Order: sequence, then C-alpha cells, then structure tokens
Amino acid sequence: MSTKQIDLSELRLFDHHCHSVTAADLDRRELELLITEASAIPPGVDRFHTQVGMSVRRWCAPVLGLEPFASADTYVARRQELGGREASRRLLAASGIAALGLETGIEPEDAFSPDDMATSCEADWLEIIRLERETERLAQRFVADGGGRDGAAFLAALDEHLRSRLAGAIGVKSIAAYRIGLDFNASRPSSAEAVTALERWLGTIQGDALPRLTDVTIIRMLLWWAIDHQTAIQLHIGYGDDDVDLHRCNPLLLSTLLRETASSGARFMLLHCYPFHREAGYLADVFPHVYCDVGLAINYTGARSSAIIAESLELTPFSKVLFSTDAFGAAELYLLGTTLFQRGLARTLQDFHEHEDWPLDDCHRIAEDIAWNNAIRAYQLTDGRGPTPR
Amino acid sequence: MSTKQIDLSELRLFDHHCHSVTAADLDRRELELLITEASAIPPGVDRFHTQVGMSVRRWCAPVLGLEPFASADTYVARRQELGGREASRRLLAASGIAALGLETGIEPEDAFSPDDMATSCEADWLEIIRLERETERLAQRFVADGGGRDGAAFLAALDEHLRSRLAGAIGVKSIAAYRIGLDFNASRPSSAEAVTALERWLGTIQGDALPRLTDVTIIRMLLWWAIDHQTAIQLHIGYGDDDVDLHRCNPLLLSTLLRETASSGARFMLLHCYPFHREAGYLADVFPHVYCDVGLAINYTGARSSAIIAESLELTPFSKVLFSTDAFGAAELYLLGTTLFQRGLARTLQDFHEHEDWPLDDCHRIAEDIAWNNAIRAYQLTDGRGPTPR
Amino acid sequence: MSTKQIDLSELRLFDHHCHSVTAADLDRRELELLITEASAIPPGVDRFHTQVGMSVRRWCAPVLGLEPFASADTYVARRQELGGREASRRLLAASGIAALGLETGIEPEDAFSPDDMATSCEADWLEIIRLERETERLAQRFVADGGGRDGAAFLAALDEHLRSRLAGAIGVKSIAAYRIGLDFNASRPSSAEAVTALERWLGTIQGDALPRLTDVTIIRMLLWWAIDHQTAIQLHIGYGDDDVDLHRCNPLLLSTLLRETASSGARFMLLHCYPFHREAGYLADVFPHVYCDVGLAINYTGARSSAIIAESLELTPFSKVLFSTDAFGAAELYLLGTTLFQRGLARTLQDFHEHEDWPLDDCHRIAEDIAWNNAIRAYQLTDGRGPTPR
Repeated sequence: MSTKQIDLSELRLFDHHCHSVTAADLDRRELELLITEASAIPPGVDRFHTQVGMSVRRWCAPVLGLEPFASADTYVARRQELGGREASRRLLAASGIAALGLETGIEPEDAFSPDDMATSCEADWLEIIRLERETERLAQRFVADGGGRDGAAFLAALDEHLRSRLAGAIGVKSIAAYRIGLDFNASRPSSAEAVTALERWLGTIQGDALPRLTDVTIIRMLLWWAIDHQTAIQLHIGYGDDDVDLHRCNPLLLSTLLRETASSGARFMLLHCYPFHREAGYLADVFPHVYCDVGLAINYTGARSSAIIAESLELTPFSKVLFSTDAFGAAELYLLGTTLFQRGLARTLQDFHEHEDWPLDDCHRIAEDIAWNNAIRAYQLTDGRGPTPR
Repeated sequence: MSTKQIDLSELRLFDHHCHSVTAADLDRRELELLITEASAIPPGVDRFHTQVGMSVRRWCAPVLGLEPFASADTYVARRQELGGREASRRLLAASGIAALGLETGIEPEDAFSPDDMATSCEADWLEIIRLERETERLAQRFVADGGGRDGAAFLAALDEHLRSRLAGAIGVKSIAAYRIGLDFNASRPSSAEAVTALERWLGTIQGDALPRLTDVTIIRMLLWWAIDHQTAIQLHIGYGDDDVDLHRCNPLLLSTLLRETASSGARFMLLHCYPFHREAGYLADVFPHVYCDVGLAINYTGARSSAIIAESLELTPFSKVLFSTDAFGAAELYLLGTTLFQRGLARTLQDFHEHEDWPLDDCHRIAEDIAWNNAIRAYQLTDGRGPTPR
Repeated sequence: MSTKQIDLSELRLFDHHCHSVTAADLDRRELELLITEASAIPPGVDRFHTQVGMSVRRWCAPVLGLEPFASADTYVARRQELGGREASRRLLAASGIAALGLETGIEPEDAFSPDDMATSCEADWLEIIRLERETERLAQRFVADGGGRDGAAFLAALDEHLRSRLAGAIGVKSIAAYRIGLDFNASRPSSAEAVTALERWLGTIQGDALPRLTDVTIIRMLLWWAIDHQTAIQLHIGYGDDDVDLHRCNPLLLSTLLRETASSGARFMLLHCYPFHREAGYLADVFPHVYCDVGLAINYTGARSSAIIAESLELTPFSKVLFSTDAFGAAELYLLGTTLFQRGLARTLQDFHEHEDWPLDDCHRIAEDIAWNNAIRAYQLTDGRGPTPR
C-alpha cells in the first residue's frame, strides 16, 4: 500500500464567504471577543482555553515571529508590538487565499477596506451583498428623505437598488436563519402582501438608528427576489452567535423551498451548517442547485476540524462542496480557516487513500474542486468574469 | 497487544431489505441516475465524482475484469460490452449474499425476477411486501372492476388480499416517511374512520394510472393492520430521495407508536436511518421489538461508511443490528453494500480489538449476529422456514 | 514529532452527577436490568452482548479478581461469591473518584447510604437535590397531614422546604425533560398561575402512593425558583430510558430560557446530552452560565466513548466541560464511567498532541480542568466549602 503523504498547503483557495478584518490594536479581551461567537465572556473563562485559542497559539504565533504555542499574553503583546494593521496584514498574507467573496453587510470597527483585504492577501475580491442589510440601509434613507410609509414606492426603490448592487456582485446573502428562523412558509408573497408588510415596517422606523428587519413577509420577498434574478444565494445555516435559535436553523427546514426552486436558475449556498452538515450534504446530493460548506466550523473547532470535514464528505457530491472561512474581525480566523481546511482535507483524503486505495490524482482533483473549481462554476465565473487563476 | 487483522470478507450475509436490479444495457447517464438518490443530475455534475462513484471504480471495476479505479467511461464501456444482464449477474455473484429479503413494491425497468436475483447470488430469497403499493394496486383493480367507492367492501378485500400476500412473505414494508412523514398520530384509526378515508380516496381514482396513496388515516390503518398481524414491519427512516422531507423522517417521531406496541408481537425494523442512526440505536436499545440498520448509507458513503457503521454500534445492542444493502436498480449497489459493510465492520471491530482488547471471538460473534443471526431471529425463521444456512 | 503517551489514569475526579448503588446480591437478570436504560429485556437479547456488557467484562472482571473478558456467567458468579456489598465496594474503590455529587431523588433497592458511597470511594460527597422528587415527597406529606388542596399554603411550605434542603446541597436537578419535555414555555409563571396549578395537582393526590408531578406550570415554577436562588441547576438532556421522548430532549429547545437567564447568577449543567452533545457544546460556548458533560453516554457506549468525548470537545470551551458518570444502581457503572472517561479523554488529547502538536502541559491542564477544576468553579466551591483536594 502506498504511504505517500497528501500535502494541500499550496492549494489555490477561493474563500466564497468572508468578511473584513479590523486594523485595531487589540488588547487581550478585545481579541478574545473576536475569536468567539459569544457576546460576553464570563469571569474565569479564558477564550484561549478553547479549540480556537489553541489553534491561534499553534498557527498564528509563528506568522508573527513567535514560537508555536507561545502563551496567549505573549501572543497579544507581539500583536500589539507589530500593530493591529501590520499583524493582520501578515496573517492575511500567510492565509494563501487567491479569491475573496466578501460579504459587505457587516464589518468590524476600523475595518480593512475590500481593496486592503485583497492587497493583503494578494487576492482578487468579489462582492456578496447582504439582502437584509441592503434593505435596512435603504429604508433608513427612504424614511429620512421623506418617503414615509409608502410601501409601493419603497418596493420600487428597493428593486432598483438591489438590481444595481447585484450588477456589481456575484451573489447575495441572507440571514433569514437569525431573523425569522428557517421554518418559514416557502411560498412567494404576493405584491399586495409585500406592500402591506413594508408599510407596517416603514411605519416603525424613526430617528437615525438603522432599522432592524425581522418581518417574515419582507424577508421571504427578498429571497424570492433573489430567486427570480437567478443569482447565487448564500444562506446562514446552523452554528452562529447567541441570538440564533439553532434548532430553527436546520437546513432541512428549507426542503420545500429548495424543491420548488430546483429549476429556477438560482443556486443556494448553505453556509457553515454545523452541526447539521450531514443534513446539508443530503440536500446538496438530491437538489441540483444546492451547495454547502463547513466554514466557521473549521476555524472554531481546531484540532477537531478534520473530523467535521470528513463528515461533510459523505453524501455531498465532490462538485458541490465549497470552501469558506467566514472569517470576521480577527485576521487570525483567515489563517486558521485556510490552514485547518488544508490540513483537515488532506488528513481526510489521506485516510481514503490509505484505507480505500484512492489514487492520489483523484484526491488532488477533489481538493482542487472544493478549493476553487466548484466556486467558479457555481458562481458562473467561467466566462472570464471573476478572479484570474494564478 | 495483538495485531491480528479481522477479515470479514467471507461473512454469510442476510440482506434483509433490498430490491431487484435492471438487466438493461445502461449508458453512462442511465447508470449515473441509478447511483444517486437525486431525480435529476445538473449540468457540470459528474455522479462518478462522489463517494459512490469512487467506490464503483474501486470495487466493481475488478469484478468486470478491469483495473481498480478504471475511469468511469472505461467502466461503462466494459459494462455495455458484457451486456447489462451479464454485468449485473457478475456483480450479484460477487456480492456474496446468501439470503435476500426482496421488497417487491417497486422495481426498475427490465428487472431481474426474484428467482433470477436468487440464482445470480446463489442465494435464497424471501419476500417483503410494501403496504402502500399493495393497497394502490388493489384499489386500481377494485375501481376498474366496478367496486366504486365502497369503502367497507374495499376494506374487506384489502384485509383478505394482505393476509394472502403476507402468508408468503416474511414481513411488510411501509414508506409512511415519504407519504405522510413520521410525525403522524400514533393511535389506531377506528373502522369508521378507515372506511370514510377509503371512500374519499377511492372516489379520486379514475382511469388506468396507479393511484397514489397519501392519506394519513389509511396509512395508519395499514400500520395497525401489520401490528395486529404480529409481523415484521420495515420502515423507511432518514435518508432517501428528493421527495422526502428528511426532518419528518427522524425515527424519534415514532416514540409513542413504539412505546404502545412494545408487547404487541410486532417487530419494527428501522431502515437506513442516516443521519439519525444514533437516534435509531437509542430506540433499538430501549424498545424490545425495535431493530435497525444503516443500509443505503453504506453503499452511498463509500470511504466514510466505516465511520457510520461505528456510530451505529454505540447504543444498539449487538443482537438488534441488521444488515441490508437497500440496493435498487444497479447491481453495483449490491456489491458495494456488501463489500463496504464487511470492510467497515471489520475496521470498526479492529479498532475495538486494538484499543479495548476485545477478543477476536467476540468480534466474530458480533459480526455473524449482525450479518445473519439477528435477521433469522427477528424474522422468526428459526423453525426451518426461511433460508438454509450454508 | 513527540510520541509520548498521555496517561490520565491518576486524574483526580469530581463526579458532579451520580447516584447510589445497590448492595444486593444480584443474579444475572438483575444485573442486566441495571446495565440498561430499557425497562424490559426481550427474549433472546443478552444485555452483555452490548458495549456496556463488553466493558463490564473488560474492566470490572479484573477488579473482582477475574481475567479480563471473563464470561458473563463467570462474572456474575464471582460477584455473588463476594456478595453484592463487597463487590460494589471494590468497584467503587477502584473507580478513583475523589468527590461525589450525589443526586438523592432516586435510589436503587438496598442502596448504599451517601456516607457508605463516600467511604467506599475514599471520596467527599456533596448533595444535589431533585426538584420534582422533593416536591412530590412534600406534597404526599402535605396531603397526609390534612393540608388538602390549599395551593398557597403548599407554595409557602415548598419554598421553606427547598430553601432548607438547598442550604445543605450544592445544587438542584430537574427531570423536566422526562416529565414535560424541553419545549416548554420559558417564561416565569405568575404566583396565581402557580397556586392554581398546585391546587389542581394536590386535588389529585390520594392514598399513600408518592404522587407523580407532570404539571408543566409547577415544573416551570420550580426551575424559576432555582434560578432566583442563583444555584447550579442540573438538567437531564438527551439519552435516557424508554419513557423519555428523546426528540423533545434536545437542549436547543432551552435557548430562550438560557438567553433570558444569562445574567441571573444561576448556572445550568446540561447532563449526558447524547446524541445532542454538539448542540450542548454550542450552548456552552455562547452562553456564559452553561456547562455540559457526556456522562451516561460514556459508560454505555464503551469502546465508542472516546469518539463521543472527542465530539464533545469541539465548540465547548475547555473551562465549561464537566465530568460525571451518572452511575445508578450497579457499581460497575462507576468504574466504567471513570475508566472509559480517562481512556477516552487521553486518546482524544493524544490525537491533538500527535496531529496538531499540542503541548503535553496544555493537554494535562485541559484534563484536570474537565475532571476537577471546572466543577469547583461552576459549583462555587472555591471558598473552602466543598471537597478537600488530596
């Protein structure tokens, strides 16, 4: 039996869902709050005493010139010595990402611009627009400009706005999981229902604060807008922060919507999916327009991420698996997202090679498809639009 | 520590739930459609670029005289050269199955007859009847013969028909999971409710097409008919094709029904179960009349099937685990179902042997129980009825 | 790469949730009924032919002076020869537990007293009171003493009783999962609602039998009583015996309750959790006051327990993982709970050490936190109250 080692550390990566990082000079508490999905850290809890914390010490410390497993305090001191911008730049450069699908609906304080992100990574960047945030920003301006609660006028303005934004983007993202749960009625709202819901929502907006969109009819309308525009639709699935009701984020709850849109031309990208990644794999297997990844779960589960990657490669066709980091805020999450993905996928394929004799050529083809080719095809970037292969 | 290798390739197998295969000369697309649970294959998606595809190239190619991992095109060309019937016959013969529990409610085009299946495998065959399909066929004839919508008359005819069919079978199968979901009311419908539901359904039947039974009362009535007849009841659980709502196929939804029938004399065989195989194992642990397998999931998850087999051996008592392929259409699924089962179970038991010192005798007893003895006992074939041990 | 073996067999253990064992001279059937969560064992089913049975033969037999993997009959004969009390004493002594969190709401026949348990283990013991059982016992006395169905009087008596009991305990336990499912309304019942519910329940109590509390309002009231008293609240989650509806024991169903109590001062200990341990880990990650363990699942899944321990160390911060056996009745479950925990955690950390280079010091810190330090902090025993470190 062959014992060749599979090494994917040079794999070209298309991170199809990620966010900007902060350039701020983070102290230990600030960094800890960026490497957790919790919104608070209780007394006595050390956020470095986790899988992600161990991974930062293992993989990020050397990039900043320290020994592997330098202590958390040493790491933070070195990060501050370099400055937040320079430390982040080094981590991004070491991540080896060649194309960024930046979701621009949310960003940390003192954020890298998309161009700064791309320059730091030596990558191309492409935009993903967040439907709920685009709608909230437009509603804020609409009311501020005296549009009042004219639902029909807002609906027309929204359509024009989203068309314009989508023209420069490769797809949309929805956080329906957070806002309404995935157990919503899959049917398309009528125009009258949409206008009524918009009027109700616009009527609640006052002052300068960004309004928060939680109306189920409006969010369903946005999803159907995206379906009608035959675009790529990223959906938050599964694991997230503490304002998600995780049992309402099971992707199986989308079964009816997916069944009805199989021939629509739209594609659905199920993001993260943990701990429902097997369920997501089933959906990607039986529905032609469904893709999935285990981003976020990889950087946060550290030494266990290879097991999760392996589980995500059961039913999912190898042409339907995508790669993402879902990194946000801390540049460390980019480095971990790529390093742990490359290592975990290599360990998984090594197991297939050693126990089931899979040829190395097939293993590398699978890795390259997941890391790059599937995204190019799923986002329909094969016509020269999109990132340049290096 | 002993390092003896466990080899289960000669294990005698009772495949308690499987279907007929096609003798057709399949081209690549036709074969691809038989090695997926999806009802369509989107452009750009190669169904060989999956776990099941890799497994066909690894394990089936040599049976047809090719090198392991011959390309998909080479494989299909060789299959056509041999002819569909001969290729299928070779794959069945190599599967090593000694007893087939054939579910006869559905079959592919140009299907092998049960006797052909048995001859090809050098196996005995036993029948499992599908409740919904038996009912649909009888209803079609009943209406064609002028029975109209006489529910009471149909109920009597159905009882007689099912008794007659069951007399020659070892059990029944229900696809309640597909038709009504498993979240149905567990209670027994009254005769009056059953008759009313039958009249409503019969009234919808017209023309020659086979009617489709989706009425929850009628399907509940069929399940209780089977319970009253103290037979073995196979239930589709979990993973299946794209018309299943997988979140309504969690076997835990059957808890009330199982609790109420624990002393009925009926036995429940939970089929497939992925990704709810741990939940199924819990049910098999606490309810005396519940058995389970991870068929279908084994042939479709290829190099990952050993991990799923291992997970299915946590709570499930070793006397309650069954073996099936759930193969349908492509004879390849038989060979994969048996080969991957034997290898995955061996790998799992090897781990128990190496890390927890399990004696080899115990490991082999467990394997033989799962592969053969448990089915003999669960289907009550110990009185000489059923397959002859070889 | 280092290949040092991690050995945790000397790890100091705080078993934060466990029960008393029986001193009875068990015959084979009686022992089998204590090493299963099923309430009956069907004909032909050998409860030693399971993960837990194999583990008893592997690990308990040598403690009673037999060869590893002695047969079940040999084991039971030796156990009877020693006598139930002496055999149990030896198993408890070998378990190596240094502190017992004894839940006193349920105990087996001929039970060891808490002091006997502690003496046998050479451990300290601390009490956990079961809310439902305390309430049932008090209601029985209240009615017997002529209190009738005076809800307000009972409420006052209950408050006084629970305060008194909690003063001598380190926390409470609730079996809401069994009695009402975890999909209950998270809001606090009003006093009027509580009194009405108590009156209804008290009115059903007659005779000498212990009443059974299944009223959702009363159980919600008890949980909020515990929250108000800022104590540690152990909750049964997931896997249990056959009167649990497992799909209603998913800890995610508690999301709203946990969100609303994050700053209450109460702490929630999610017990067992299998097969929802990943979901529990998510809750422990995002909510500051949530802890979890995989007790019960460890002793019952034997050679597979290391895999479950590994899965429980994905999202859960290492400062939020607890250790328990949930042993009840059979002293074997103590020995298995500790031995398999120590071995499975060592195997998991060994994997992290070998594949991700985790320093041995970090591995040992994680082990000591899970085994001891986290319980000391979570139960607020750092002020000298509680067990003495040896």
